[in-house]
Formats: sequence, structure tokens, C-alpha cells
Amino acid sequence: MIAATHHTALADLIGPDNILTEAGDLAGYEAGARYDRGRAALVVRPRDTEQVSKAVAYCVRNGIAIIPQSGNTGVVSGSTPDASGEQVVISLDRLARQFELDIENRSLRVDAGFRLSEVNTRLADHGLQFPIDLGADPRLGGMLSTNTGGSRFLKFGDVRRNVLGIKVVLADEHGTVLDLMSGLRKNNTGVDWKHIFIGTVGAFGIITECELNLEPLPLQVATALLVPRDGAAVMPLLAAMERRLGSYLSAFEGMSGNAIKAALGHVPSLRNPFANGAVPDYTILTEVSRDWEWREGEETLDQVLENVLAEVWESADAPLADAFVGPAAEIWTLRHALSEGVRASGRLAAFDLSFRRQDVIRFCDHMKQVLPARYPGITVCDFGHVGDGGVHFNLVLAPDAPTGPEIETELRAFVYGAAVEEFGGSYSAEHGIGRKNQSFYDHYTDETRRELANGLKALTSPAKLGTVRFGSA
Amino acid sequence: MIAATHHTALADLIGPDNILTEAGDLAGYEAGARYDRGRAALVVRPRDTEQVSKAVAYCVRNGIAIIPQSGNTGVVSGSTPDASGEQVVISLDRLARQFELDIENRSLRVDAGFRLSEVNTRLADHGLQFPIDLGADPRLGGMLSTNTGGSRFLKFGDVRRNVLGIKVVLADEHGTVLDLMSGLRKNNTGVDWKHIFIGTVGAFGIITECELNLEPLPLQVATALLVPRDGAAVMPLLAAMERRLGSYLSAFEGMSGNAIKAALGHVPSLRNPFANGAVPDYTILTEVSRDWEWREGEETLDQVLENVLAEVWESADAPLADAFVGPAAEIWTLRHALSEGVRASGRLAAFDLSFRRQDVIRFCDHMKQVLPARYPGITVCDFGHVGDGGVHFNLVLAPDAPTGPEIETELRAFVYGAAVEEFGGSYSAEHGIGRKNQSFYDHYTDETRRELANGLKALTSPAKLGTVRFGSA
Repeated sequence: MIAATHHTALADLIGPDNILTEAGDLAGYEAGARYDRGRAALVVRPRDTEQVSKAVAYCVRNGIAIIPQSGNTGVVSGSTPDASGEQVVISLDRLARQFELDIENRSLRVDAGFRLSEVNTRLADHGLQFPIDLGADPRLGGMLSTNTGGSRFLKFGDVRRNVLGIKVVLADEHGTVLDLMSGLRKNNTGVDWKHIFIGTVGAFGIITECELNLEPLPLQVATALLVPRDGAAVMPLLAAMERRLGSYLSAFEGMSGNAIKAALGHVPSLRNPFANGAVPDYTILTEVSRDWEWREGEETLDQVLENVLAEVWESADAPLADAFVGPAAEIWTLRHALSEGVRASGRLAAFDLSFRRQDVIRFCDHMKQVLPARYPGITVCDFGHVGDGGVHFNLVLAPDAPTGPEIETELRAFVYGAAVEEFGGSYSAEHGIGRKNQSFYDHYTDETRRELANGLKALTSPAKLGTVRFGSA
Repeated sequence: MIAATHHTALADLIGPDNILTEAGDLAGYEAGARYDRGRAALVVRPRDTEQVSKAVAYCVRNGIAIIPQSGNTGVVSGSTPDASGEQVVISLDRLARQFELDIENRSLRVDAGFRLSEVNTRLADHGLQFPIDLGADPRLGGMLSTNTGGSRFLKFGDVRRNVLGIKVVLADEHGTVLDLMSGLRKNNTGVDWKHIFIGTVGAFGIITECELNLEPLPLQVATALLVPRDGAAVMPLLAAMERRLGSYLSAFEGMSGNAIKAALGHVPSLRNPFANGAVPDYTILTEVSRDWEWREGEETLDQVLENVLAEVWESADAPLADAFVGPAAEIWTLRHALSEGVRASGRLAAFDLSFRRQDVIRFCDHMKQVLPARYPGITVCDFGHVGDGGVHFNLVLAPDAPTGPEIETELRAFVYGAAVEEFGGSYSAEHGIGRKNQSFYDHYTDETRRELANGLKALTSPAKLGTVRFGSA
């Protein structure tokens, strides 16, 4: 256990109200939202960047390992302490005061502890949004440090694209504050350091504040479920939609029949939207949107979508077998229930992969061929972002399938091996690196890049920070 | 002069045809397209990444400074040798063979020596584009290493947003090739190193290949010149257009009356588009575009633009004094002639600035107040990208105004001081750092960032590379 002197010293530095030590208080910070459980020495809850800096400097000087923790909704063990009970969690959950909206610049200067949902609720009053659409509700710091993508990447890109500036506390003896705050969209005056901290899960510094690019809220939306003729028809269908809808197209999300069945089976409130209730092998959720009010004389967006689908339907070699235009809320409820449905279906091995766009379906088809022979009783419940190459590749294990850490590691190696080596994909599309996939970072990162990362770690935050090891620390 | 042994050794390494040494052959590589003149020891023209690596390794081992040179169209002395005659230019102009289009992934794997115009000519056959719209015609390597923006940033962003992967040669004794090539849009597996090389003008490595994100070509375009009621009406006008046009809006470019007059006065082929030929104080070029074919029943884009302008015109506190919808080619010809017109008007001091969007007009108005008192006879001929906060702030000096390097430096310090210190802007929006603004990098970059950059330089390319000094090299 951490010495009581450290508790006292930290309480003196940033206030006793900002430190938690009781087992009951710590529990919520020791477990991830979906996976993972460890033990914290204590939890520090700073209220501003200066307090983060003081806490970090103290821990570094005393050789105490720090785990920065944001919304703790990740899946790679990037924000929970290990089992040692010797790590200090620095939580961002009280770092949520600054909220400065710059409407003309379409940007928001904000503390990193706000939750995405709160940011977007506040922005909605102004017709604006931070355009990252996720099933979970993380805090901003975690979103930046993992560079989340989400369901509307196709139109708005990832977090990285929508960050103008950040403030970071480095894990050195001074808790150096690196001020990279900016409201500028164009600024090429040296290294754009923020990109080193975005997506690297806190290993190089703790992001405490940021300025975000904002986008207008969509004011017209039309949604449909499309059933491609077969797997080979998915890319032609995407091409046909992109050619006819251009920047209207804001989502093109693939959902396997297994994932939909899991959701329908475990989330009773869902309505089965398919004719006669027959769930197709693969369905695409597509969304078109416009960020202005409908104008007299303009086709409604539902009409636009129906006309486009009719054109695609009637085209030679039509890639479409069926289509259902339906209410956005109902269709997105189904999409967002997939994750819960799959989790409820049995023991789950979940992988967050990405590929060149055309390889998403190819990879899934390949795995559906090779996995059952090797791992009998496994069910592939994939869904994801065909339009940008991302896929949540979920495997539900049979109740009687052998289990344990060794088998899980072997399965993970098998899936990542196929994704990375055979299909040139990524083993972490939008979740970053943590304890859970550290060994794959070590394995798949070439020596030059590993050495550069080690050097960068020594340069920025030489002390122990976060769960991912880029350097020797 | 460089020893003849070096010439021979380099010729042995990468072929005598790929080395230039004659004064007449060197001249084109010693002068920038618009500014700047130096002397090269010799010019190396590698045909692939491996040859770049060999040339770099040789130069580093022999202590020879290297200047990577791409299209050489920049304005900050980032790609020309100094006057010493001891620097070796490594030109990308023969590095233009690989051109692998991946239509389904909407990406292009390409050598860095291709010119933007050639890339887009080839892509047009497939209805695609690399969506960076510039007046100049640089090669890709230079575009990446300065992170250019351009006239359609509002819709497509900068180069950084549109790069998926790069290959880089580091200036170490091995000419290490750092392979960051990727066709993935999502990949969060450690440091995204490409961002260190994008926008840093070759100081950390030479970009030799890249994979680019492509966008569909617009298939419908409508263009108009808008005259805001006054300076204070520009931002409300932008807001009114964004609210009604959303992602249709692909350009919102400000043009001062002085810049337009300079263009009309010096480019005889231009037609004066304004009523009675009276050039307004400030005009906005706006463009709306759609990347699909017009469909039966859909309003034409000209109608959309006219309807929107009519709505804005009739709104309370209408920000619009006048508007001319006209042919896109004619209007863009005027826009792209501004630079030539301004250059032809007299001695020019040109600055590439950026601000929060609302500060572009405020800054220009402020400078129009304070500059004449301090520098009599100066004419402000600004134009630029109001929609993203960028502005080409050009000063034409009176023929009899005092001149010389000292006055130029003083003027530069005055303009940058106001831009950075008073308005929180950037002194290099999209041109990077070179000899010309190095001292401002040194002055305006805080110590923490300078030290980090020095450390990064030692880590990546410890030898002398490029014209910008981030480290001691």
C-alpha cells in the first residue's frame, strides 16, 4: 500500500476533498465499464490543470505510478490500475468547469472531464455538435487519448480531425504544462505536437483541456436499412450510394445477421423491422442528412433517399436485394443495441479492427470460413463502419467451449494475425493500446517505430504514466 | 565547393544520370519559384525511395548538408540552398513513377514527386480528386511537408486531413526508411508518426511516398460574388450561408477591393464583373457544390444558390449589399489572378496569416488603421479564406518607400507582432517554416516546445536537413 505520508502530502497539495482512499469510494475507479478490474492506491480528482500538474509532479518525484482515468468506458485496459494496489488514479471526473463556446469560430474551449453527452446537450441549444457519435458516453479526455471514431466517421472523421488545441500535463518532476491550446484551423509553425498525445492513451501526457471544432446539427435526416444482394454487392452498393448522395451520406454501417438476431433476442423493446421477421445475413444501415431546414420547393430528404434507392434498385446488376426506409430513431436504436445484444449472448471475445474499405467484408467472410474449424461453436457477430473500413469483430463462444486466459490469448493472436498479416489491417481501429493489447503493439510495431516511441517517451513524460508501455517506464 | 570525390561517389551510388553539377543545370534548383536564390553544390535526382536513402546516408556520413526540394513553389525559403554553395539539393522531380489507385478504398498510393495538377488530371478520369485547391502547382512532397490548405479547406480540410500514410527517409547514417504507408482511415496502435513529418518542411525526414485520401469531383457547381454590407456584416453573412447551405458550401473567400483592382489592372484578360465597374471595398467569392449528377425533379444548384441569396437579402439586418451569380470559371479566374495582380503592382511584402474566423476582418481593419501612419504609402491588398480563418495579408509598398532587409524585417515583425500577440493568430497558416521566418519561430515558440522539437530532431534526423532549424543541426 501507498504510504500514508503520500496521502497527506497530496491532500495538502490539492485539498483533502479531492482525494479518495476508502475502499468503497475507490471501487468505481478500479473497474472498467466493460472489462477489467484492479486496485488503486488512492484516487486524485483534480479540479483544474494546475492541480493535475501538482499531483503529477508529486507522484513523479516519489516514484509513484500514475493511471490517468477519464470516462473509463474503453475496452483495452487503458484507464484502470493494475492489481498491485500501488498505482495512483488521477481521475478527470471533476475537471469539468470551463465551457467557452465561440460560435463565430464554431469551436469550444472545454475541460477534458466533460462527458460527450453533456457537451452535445449543451451545444444543441446553439444548433451545434461535437460530431463524434458513439454508443458509449466517455469523457473528452479519453476520447482524445484514444482518438475515437464512431458511426458518423464517414462524414465528420475521427476525434483527431476535430481537435484544434489541447493542454497537456507531462509526467516529469515539474508536472510541466504543455500549452497547445488554439482556436486556429490553420497553423503550420513547427511540430503540431497535439498529434503525439491524441490516440496514445495518456502515455505521453495527460490531456486536461481542449478546443474542439464544432459542426452544425443535422436538421433533416432520412434513414434506411438496405439488404445487399450478397457479400460481393456491399462495395458496389456503397459506390452507388456515394455517387448519388455525396456528402449527404452520413452513415453506412454494416450489421451481420447474427448481431441483429442477438440484439432482437436480448433487447425486448426492439421491433423486428424485416419482412416476415426474417433477418438477412447482412444489413446496411444508411443515413443521409442535411444541416439546414427544409425549404419550400425542395424535395424532402425521405424523397431523395427513396428516389436514390429506386435508381439503385433498377440499375443493371443491382446490388440491392431489399430496402426499408424507416424512422431514424427506431433504426438507430437497433444499431446501438447490437453491442448489448452481443454481450448478452454468451462469453464474448471482441476485436476492434480496421481495413481498406473493401476488405471489411472480405475479412469477415474469410473468418467465417476458417474460424469454425478451429474453434467449434464460435458465432461471428460482426458489425461496424463499412464506409470507413472499421469493424467490431465479435466472437460469441459456445457455452461449453474451453476457456481461460491462454485460449483467449491464442484466439486474439489468431484474429489479429489474419487481420494484420493477411489483410493489412489494424488490430486497434479506435480503441488505442492498453494492457489488453500491449503484447500486439510489441509484436506488430517495427523496431524503428518502437525505438522512436521510446525516445519520445523519454522526451515528454519519462515517468510511469498510464497502462501502455511505449518506453522502458 | 564540394569535393569531386563526393560527386563521383554519389554517381556510383545512384547513377551518374541522376546527378547534376553544371551551373546551367543547377540554376533551376537554386532559385525559388517566387523568392529566394542560393547556390547548390550539386543536385541529386533519385528515382525511388531507396536512392533517396542511399544519397542521404552518404551525405550524412560525410557531413554534407541536405536540402530536400519538391516543386519549389513555397514562399518561406524552405526548399532552396543557401549562398554557401556547399549544400546538396535532393530533388523529388524524378520520383514520380508509382501511381496506384484504389478506387474502392478511395485512396491513391503515389510517389511524392508528382505535381498536384498531374495527380488531379489522372484522377479526373475516375471522377476523383485530391481535394486541395491551390493557385500554385507544387509537388506532393512539398504539399505534405508544408501542410498546404487552399481555397476549399472549408469543405475538405488541409493536406494533413487527407493523408493516410507516408514513407520517410531519415537523415541519419543509414538513411533509415521509416515505412508509415497505410491505406487505413482508422488505426490507433501507438504514435501516428506521420503527423511529425507533415508540416515540418523536411526537417525531420524526407517524405518520398504517400497514400492519399481521395474525394469525388464536384459534378454541380454554382458560384457567386457577394458584397457584404460592411466589414461587420461578413461573419453574419458567413453564418447565414452556412445555416442555409451546410456541407454544400465549398468556398467562402474574401477579396479586398485593392487586391481585385490590382488583378483587374494587371491581368488584361479579366472582365470586371461589378455593376458599372465599381469595385467594392470587400467581396466574398462563394461556391456551392454537389458531387452527384443533377436529377430530374431536383432544383438546379444555381436555383438553390439564388434562392438562398434571396432569403439572405430579404432577412432582417440583411448582411448583403449586392450579389452577382456568375460562371464559376470566370469568377475563379479572378480569384486566382489576385496573387499575380498584387505581385505586379509594386514591391510586395506578403504574409500568410490565420486567425479565429471572426478575427480575419477585425485584423485587416485594424491594420488598415495603424499601418499607414507608420509606413506611409503602403497599400493593403489582402485576400484569403475567411471560412477557415486564413488570410494572405499582402502589402504593396509605394515606389519611393524606403527599402532594404532591415525595413523588411521590421515590417515583418510589426505585422507578425500584431497577428500573434494582439489577435492570437498564426504567422504561418499554410506555408510552414523556412529561412524567411525562422527567427519568428525562435521568437514565438515557447521554450518547452523548442526543447521538445530539438529532442525530436535528435531522435529522427540528427543531421543537417532542410532550411529550418528545429535543433542544433
